[in-house]
Amino acid sequence: MQIREATEADFEKIWPIFHDIASAGEAYAYPQDTSKEEANRLWMHLPRKTYVAEEEGQILGTYYIKTNQAGPGSHVCNCGYMVSTTARGRGLATSMCEHSQIIAVELGYKAMQFNFVVATNVGAVRIWNKLGFDTIGSIPKAFNHPTRGYVNALVMYKWLET
Amino acid sequence: MQIREATEADFEKIWPIFHDIASAGEAYAYPQDTSKEEANRLWMHLPRKTYVAEEEGQILGTYYIKTNQAGPGSHVCNCGYMVSTTARGRGLATSMCEHSQIIAVELGYKAMQFNFVVATNVGAVRIWNKLGFDTIGSIPKAFNHPTRGYVNALVMYKWLET
Repeated sequence: MQIREATEADFEKIWPIFHDIASAGEAYAYPQDTSKEEANRLWMHLPRKTYVAEEEGQILGTYYIKTNQAGPGSHVCNCGYMVSTTARGRGLATSMCEHSQIIAVELGYKAMQFNFVVATNVGAVRIWNKLGFDTIGSIPKAFNHPTRGYVNALVMYKWLET
Repeated sequence: MQIREATEADFEKIWPIFHDIASAGEAYAYPQDTSKEEANRLWMHLPRKTYVAEEEGQILGTYYIKTNQAGPGSHVCNCGYMVSTTARGRGLATSMCEHSQIIAVELGYKAMQFNFVVATNVGAVRIWNKLGFDTIGSIPKAFNHPTRGYVNALVMYKWLET
């Protein structure tokens, strides 16, 4: 498995992963009916960089990195990670998050912030905690979960500079 | 003083207010050198709606309202407020925030979130607290203040539905 920067051609393989996760409506603040064109813009073009985790020509996961706030907030980046359903439980999220922290420092960021971690996504919360992210806030009923209704969203944060 | 929806022509009077506040670099996550064109996009076009507080043809303050997160997060709005230096201390921020909460409910939002309140901006924090916003998170060293260095940014939140 290697993690490398995504090319525009990779989007054909990223799209099914994005679509699965967005349409489930349980983890990301994307509309469940996000179109392929909009997903391309959101995942490939709006961020500063996009990466894929690839194995034998298969794309198992993907992440983006972007500046979280402009100007006086621009030393903090934001990332989003998606793992293909077929590749869950193999530590992909951990590998991609570790990779993204190295890239973040290379790009000059001093900290990484996740703005909207759905509190019911306990697997993700556990991984980010293990990787050194602190939950620095909980936004009450900020996420409308398809089966659980309004649930909290967490703000998680890690200072990267040592 | 009346608060009304902004027209494109109002931007000529909004721009000096925006420019004063952005170039000071103490309160907003906008680059200090944000251009007039970019300010127009950020304040007038990116948001869902923009309002001005007007008195005798003078624009004393302005605010925007937009959806804070898409899809499952789209019931929460975000607002930003700016008051002209010449109109400070007259309760404009309070009036505009109260107005924005009414508009938010009219637009169907259930909650309002401020993502990035600079912790050293104690006047703003006090006003938002008084208006019922809770500080639900503090992001360590997330804002690079021109004289105080890295200071915390607060996440503030209010559920609007009664």
